[in-house]
Amino acid sequence: MQQIDQYLSDNSARFETELLEFLRIPSVSADSAFKGDVRRAAEFVRSQFRSIDFAVVLVETAGHPIVYAESPFVLGAPTVLVYGHYDVQPPDPLGEWKTPPFEPAIRDGYVFARGATDDKGQVFTHIKSAEAWVKTVGSVPVNLKYVIEGEEEVGSNNLEIFLNASRSKLKSDVAVISDTSQFGPGRPAITHGLRGIVACEVTLRGPKQDLHSGIFGGSIANPANALARIVASLHDVNGKIQIPGFYDDIPPLTPEERSRLVDLRFDEAAYLREIEVSAPFGEPGYTTLERRWVRPTCDVNGITGGYQGEGPKTIVPAWARAKITCRLVPNQSPEKIVKSIEQHLRANCPPGVKLEFREWHGCPGYAFDTNNRYMHAATRAIADSFGVEPVFIREGGTIPVVESFRRILGLDTLLLGWGQNTDNLHGPNEHFLLADFHRGTKASAHLWQELTRS
Amino acid sequence: MQQIDQYLSDNSARFETELLEFLRIPSVSADSAFKGDVRRAAEFVRSQFRSIDFAVVLVETAGHPIVYAESPFVLGAPTVLVYGHYDVQPPDPLGEWKTPPFEPAIRDGYVFARGATDDKGQVFTHIKSAEAWVKTVGSVPVNLKYVIEGEEEVGSNNLEIFLNASRSKLKSDVAVISDTSQFGPGRPAITHGLRGIVACEVTLRGPKQDLHSGIFGGSIANPANALARIVASLHDVNGKIQIPGFYDDIPPLTPEERSRLVDLRFDEAAYLREIEVSAPFGEPGYTTLERRWVRPTCDVNGITGGYQGEGPKTIVPAWARAKITCRLVPNQSPEKIVKSIEQHLRANCPPGVKLEFREWHGCPGYAFDTNNRYMHAATRAIADSFGVEPVFIREGGTIPVVESFRRILGLDTLLLGWGQNTDNLHGPNEHFLLADFHRGTKASAHLWQELTRS
Repeated sequence: MQQIDQYLSDNSARFETELLEFLRIPSVSADSAFKGDVRRAAEFVRSQFRSIDFAVVLVETAGHPIVYAESPFVLGAPTVLVYGHYDVQPPDPLGEWKTPPFEPAIRDGYVFARGATDDKGQVFTHIKSAEAWVKTVGSVPVNLKYVIEGEEEVGSNNLEIFLNASRSKLKSDVAVISDTSQFGPGRPAITHGLRGIVACEVTLRGPKQDLHSGIFGGSIANPANALARIVASLHDVNGKIQIPGFYDDIPPLTPEERSRLVDLRFDEAAYLREIEVSAPFGEPGYTTLERRWVRPTCDVNGITGGYQGEGPKTIVPAWARAKITCRLVPNQSPEKIVKSIEQHLRANCPPGVKLEFREWHGCPGYAFDTNNRYMHAATRAIADSFGVEPVFIREGGTIPVVESFRRILGLDTLLLGWGQNTDNLHGPNEHFLLADFHRGTKASAHLWQELTRS
Repeated sequence: MQQIDQYLSDNSARFETELLEFLRIPSVSADSAFKGDVRRAAEFVRSQFRSIDFAVVLVETAGHPIVYAESPFVLGAPTVLVYGHYDVQPPDPLGEWKTPPFEPAIRDGYVFARGATDDKGQVFTHIKSAEAWVKTVGSVPVNLKYVIEGEEEVGSNNLEIFLNASRSKLKSDVAVISDTSQFGPGRPAITHGLRGIVACEVTLRGPKQDLHSGIFGGSIANPANALARIVASLHDVNGKIQIPGFYDDIPPLTPEERSRLVDLRFDEAAYLREIEVSAPFGEPGYTTLERRWVRPTCDVNGITGGYQGEGPKTIVPAWARAKITCRLVPNQSPEKIVKSIEQHLRANCPPGVKLEFREWHGCPGYAFDTNNRYMHAATRAIADSFGVEPVFIREGGTIPVVESFRRILGLDTLLLGWGQNTDNLHGPNEHFLLADFHRGTKASAHLWQELTRS
């Protein structure tokens, strides 16, 4: 590995130059005005693979192309599916950027640009690590299959079609994604759990139109009051969810899992200060970190009904609506949960009000056991590079591709984040510490080696 | 009275012509573009009083003028304060009018125009009835004081100032207002009760901005969920209000009052059909009419918070807000009720959420005993004119001027409605049955006579 580490070190300036070139391409997938640029970014990625003689194609989709690349086959070696995306979020609000989002600037060791950490900077580490092996040893010691898409920021609509159509080609032992974060500065992390989600909308309809609250009030169910009642019925006063059976399928947290979370020494006071909330609130019997990562939620994301203007208006609204999402943890079934929600809401709806229920595609929670050869390999690779062992963390959000890999390809995923959650991903002045870019590249290069150990 | 009845009959065509002239003036008080027209309407009313030699002035205010008129003083006769308004609602939506709102048209015996029933057509009956007395007998048998304002549709902001400043001048025995409705076609009514109101707004503030529901969800109180909880806490599941002490000051309904409401043979099925609601809902133990007229309410008029667009969005909202009004019945104190609401909401607010409470000026409920010489006089006058005795009804809405008369002048009010609540007041194609206009004028003329009987 010394030879490889030396190559990485000798070529670090060039890697940065190439990364800046990648970041200069405004591959905003959400805006059709940037369609040509999105393709240019795909072509840039393709050229990277061509330069190290990997088999590479642009897979055309109904939207933006997927870059698919394979390293030369190594008999008997494990196969790793590397996923990332070359598209970026829109750069708005432009006025808040200190330097233009697509003119990468280096300040205090950070590169500032849209896509710096999400995900160009992070996915690039797994390309440069392969280059280091090819240019020194002649080939990577594992079989690498890269799926680098251009629609992650717009919902990955065409990725599932590709995965389903390419099941046998994509057959692998494990997946690797660098699109998450470290736990904090100098605290590299392996994310081994994600929450799932169900999303629904409930609309209560009362009278045919808004009515005078003096003439009609008191004699019919008010849809806004009724909505408040059914939304309130989702929790008890302490924040415990009251949907029948909601928690039934969740295995209890093990003492090991709980103590591992305690060991992270999460700074709750700093967390609350940052979001300007005076006190935590949530399911009794659990810590804030448990509530964020390993316990499910039921949140109203939007509520509306009746008069929305200034001052008072004396009406009984014709309708009221709430958008509700539940974050799920492993073993909860999205289909079962969404059905229970609907049943529970209907059971709590007063007479004279019509309930309309709508749901969107859900995604189950995810967890990858931390005690296996893949996790051990990643742990050693990260320790080699960052000088400290990674912590095992979870993430309260949802990364649907991880669930797709498990469902469609039967694959578990190593979520190796090189960035920080303070890198302003999706915001102005997105950035990535170049030292972490290089540490990530080194960790990736070491990972290919470590994965060959049994 | 025969002579007077004859005069009314002989002059009915001219009365209609004059009413149409009144209706042609677009006296929209809410729109400053119509300021000159509003004054023209005041001047039209003034000219009516001048033509019968009543003392009349335009009282200038910070807004539109009040027309104040007095009949020549009759020693020993009772004094009646007649209130009405010459301003009208804006005519929008203009496209839905069959004929222009300020070009009065007569179809099927109805006059169609903005202000036809609210209130030009109704207040005009009390002017023409005085004319009939003056032009036949020489003078009205009672002392009449007219307060006809031009700001009723914009909150009567300057009326209280005038009332307070003119207490001794306005001293009277009873007030008369025709700005309500009959109970139905051919069912003239005296409205002897009104509900009051308190209006408030509650805002719950959580984190400093909308947060990602995956990263933060479950660990802090969600303002929209918390709002649902505190709004739901206002009622029990059956619709009974749960604010401590809310019902305490309300005297129980007497068996007479209840049976009088039953005697009205209210058609609940037709009522629900009209507003397209499948079932009634409200405080247990009361009928729909009781819930509308003699029991208080607590209605959300508007609710909002978080994402308001299409589809799902995974946020924990930074804030959520509800506008709430309670309709009050006599003996409930608006000040006490609004204080109880605030206390109750605060008591139900979870930790980590800031509650902001705002209130607007309230108004108590109103009731006027039906067994007194004024009610008897009005009953006889209406029976003389409509050919049927009036029913005693209440109104679920609030007419603040009635409360002002009681509070400032110590006066009770005869609410004598000549229109129908289907006359589209405030809507397009507002109309008034001309036969009711003439019956109302005759009832008014008879009322002046009847009020002289002890």
